[in-house]
Amino acid sequence: MPPRYIGLDTHETEIMSKQSQVKGAAVVGQSGGPTAVINQSLVGVIETLRGQGAIEQTLGCLHGVSGIIDDKFVDLQAIPTDVLDRIAVSPSAALGSSRDKPDRAYCERIFERFAQRNVRYFFYIGGNDSSDTCRIVNELANESGYELRCFHVPKTIDNDLVLNDHTPGYASAAKFVAQAFMGDNLDNRALPGIKIDIVMGRHAGFLTAASVLARQDDDDGPHLIYVPEAAFDADRFLADVDRVYSRVGRCLIAVSEGISDSEDTPVAERLAVEQGHHVDRDAHGNIQLSGTGALGDFLSIHIKRNLGKKLRVRADTLGYMQRSFAGCYSPVDAHEARMVGRKAAEAALADDADGSIAIQRVSDSPYGVEYPVIELATVAGKTRTMDSQHLVDGNNIADGFKDYLAPLVGELPIAQALRVECVK
Amino acid sequence: MPPRYIGLDTHETEIMSKQSQVKGAAVVGQSGGPTAVINQSLVGVIETLRGQGAIEQTLGCLHGVSGIIDDKFVDLQAIPTDVLDRIAVSPSAALGSSRDKPDRAYCERIFERFAQRNVRYFFYIGGNDSSDTCRIVNELANESGYELRCFHVPKTIDNDLVLNDHTPGYASAAKFVAQAFMGDNLDNRALPGIKIDIVMGRHAGFLTAASVLARQDDDDGPHLIYVPEAAFDADRFLADVDRVYSRVGRCLIAVSEGISDSEDTPVAERLAVEQGHHVDRDAHGNIQLSGTGALGDFLSIHIKRNLGKKLRVRADTLGYMQRSFAGCYSPVDAHEARMVGRKAAEAALADDADGSIAIQRVSDSPYGVEYPVIELATVAGKTRTMDSQHLVDGNNIADGFKDYLAPLVGELPIAQALRVECVK
Repeated sequence: MPPRYIGLDTHETEIMSKQSQVKGAAVVGQSGGPTAVINQSLVGVIETLRGQGAIEQTLGCLHGVSGIIDDKFVDLQAIPTDVLDRIAVSPSAALGSSRDKPDRAYCERIFERFAQRNVRYFFYIGGNDSSDTCRIVNELANESGYELRCFHVPKTIDNDLVLNDHTPGYASAAKFVAQAFMGDNLDNRALPGIKIDIVMGRHAGFLTAASVLARQDDDDGPHLIYVPEAAFDADRFLADVDRVYSRVGRCLIAVSEGISDSEDTPVAERLAVEQGHHVDRDAHGNIQLSGTGALGDFLSIHIKRNLGKKLRVRADTLGYMQRSFAGCYSPVDAHEARMVGRKAAEAALADDADGSIAIQRVSDSPYGVEYPVIELATVAGKTRTMDSQHLVDGNNIADGFKDYLAPLVGELPIAQALRVECVK
Repeated sequence: MPPRYIGLDTHETEIMSKQSQVKGAAVVGQSGGPTAVINQSLVGVIETLRGQGAIEQTLGCLHGVSGIIDDKFVDLQAIPTDVLDRIAVSPSAALGSSRDKPDRAYCERIFERFAQRNVRYFFYIGGNDSSDTCRIVNELANESGYELRCFHVPKTIDNDLVLNDHTPGYASAAKFVAQAFMGDNLDNRALPGIKIDIVMGRHAGFLTAASVLARQDDDDGPHLIYVPEAAFDADRFLADVDRVYSRVGRCLIAVSEGISDSEDTPVAERLAVEQGHHVDRDAHGNIQLSGTGALGDFLSIHIKRNLGKKLRVRADTLGYMQRSFAGCYSPVDAHEARMVGRKAAEAALADDADGSIAIQRVSDSPYGVEYPVIELATVAGKTRTMDSQHLVDGNNIADGFKDYLAPLVGELPIAQALRVECVK
């Protein structure tokens, strides 16, 4: 049976109570790391606001909240439909993004700009920081008795929003990770050795765990999977690799960029120090995890130094391609990203309400979801991590995780190994 | 007009002169770095030999020439057609691969095994080293008056075989690179900064040059492209980056892993020494270029140290995904890879001849190629690099390179930027 969600083309906006609408401008923004489908959410908001009498303008703020402060807005209703259609299927954030995490003072400036431009509807597409921004701006509006309808539209490849079954962007990134591991498993069969692939995820291992989709047969990799939810032990890691390599003659390893030891020190930092490298830190004292191949290289060196210099050890870091590789997205993810944009716009038009749109699974077979509005404060600033039921021995993910993930990712390409006995 | 090559399903083997056929076993092997379409060539050989009376067995040697020495053969005609169909579209080398570069003594052992198993047909799918292996084994057979038909079937993502317009595997890897840069260009627009992407290619820049396909508008990246054919100057590089960043407010850079300075020292090595890192070398004294993020990280540090610590500088290394990412291949490449396998088998069955199958373009519009048999010695051990006409100022590739590449890569996904003026 097909999934029971509504097709993209059959959508009809139902606005429940037009009499309650406040007239003014709407602002839409995108925040945080881009995804393959964040533009679907943007287009979902735009198309739902189109033709609604209460919406005097639909403005896009460039580069997230910083565009609000800097008064950099574009007219989103002026964009031709065919361009919107192309933007919807393009990766990255079309409006530009921002890493700013607004505090109350910053939000006051946002609110001032909103009052100045008579903005009455605000849609912020992003992760839990964006939800927090919505929450604070909304508080300021309430305190001033200014009617502002604030909606957080979920987005994050990390899949780490609480009260959500999963988040838009995750399944497409998971599909990329699955295809990467499916291919790398065959590559590692062809030229056996030890191969490490570093996957995005500072606190949550959901994306790294997507590598399980590459396992079709008993000897398929990834043979080991390390996620931030399980404390990493460098000696134990060597023993794991040695055991797999002795048994299978090769070893494919999935590692979250954010793995940390039992004292919560990032492994990248611990190994950098141990191997005598200089450690660069950002303003918050964090070491850089994305946009560098350092962790993979440190782990390679760690293996070679301890298990043998002659071993063929290689490391790749999947990098920004996980969120931005053109043409790689899950159709279910694209649909749901569109829907959360539409649902936010519908909810804002329907009532003087605020909130975050969640995705909650209502059935597995056929796969089906609902999009309830939940309170901003319940999502804001919180991080969800993987259930312990999926973690195995601190060095793997249970194959049962596929039951959760497969319906989100959809069809995967063929990656067929040749398995035949030698002739005599 | 559609390309004028024959569709995969309309193939018919024509064997010219059956009376000249020698009876015996055929051996097929795969060598060097895997590609997205090397299994198409394997299946092309298998299906063409099927049902031919002269072919008593079609054996696959596991892990290239090492499988011949170790007597590890599988029966390829016993594999069901549906499995072959799945293998054909799977990345990596289904028989396993090898990095061995046989010398004469090694080839003598190959020849001994061939004589022992009455092997009369040998097909080796690989780059210029594989062609050289065919050449030596063929010489040994000739010297012994043993009839052996040796065919080199071309394969390399490096696109560096002489006398070929292009090589099977290249276009699919180029497609991956194009999709990666199309997405990363939009990612870099959304979160501006300096982004370096390292692409495979030790001596030839063809694959890195494929990044030009990501440029649709004037301000699109990659803004700078560095290939091994142009000597790299670390100071000049800083000036290039600084100029682009000042003009565009961001900078996306494509870099071949094999870039070297004017003294032919790899940049990875020069910067490692300069930045105080330990340099690991292989048995040949070469430093490792693939399977590490080192070069990208060295270039990032070089920029930060010299242009400013606060710059947002990131580096990704596209890694083995370029050759093995499941589901990413060019249909033209897949077809041509199948054809060179078929053509090799047809040529071997037709006559007591030896050679390498080449791909030569006979027309651009409509795109069309021929597959002549060329002499093994003309390909063996030689490396083709990019024409100087495509190199611009030592830091870029001319957009005209697209005319050569686009027909090979085929259709690319949509990556649409939003380009509108701010409202007042």
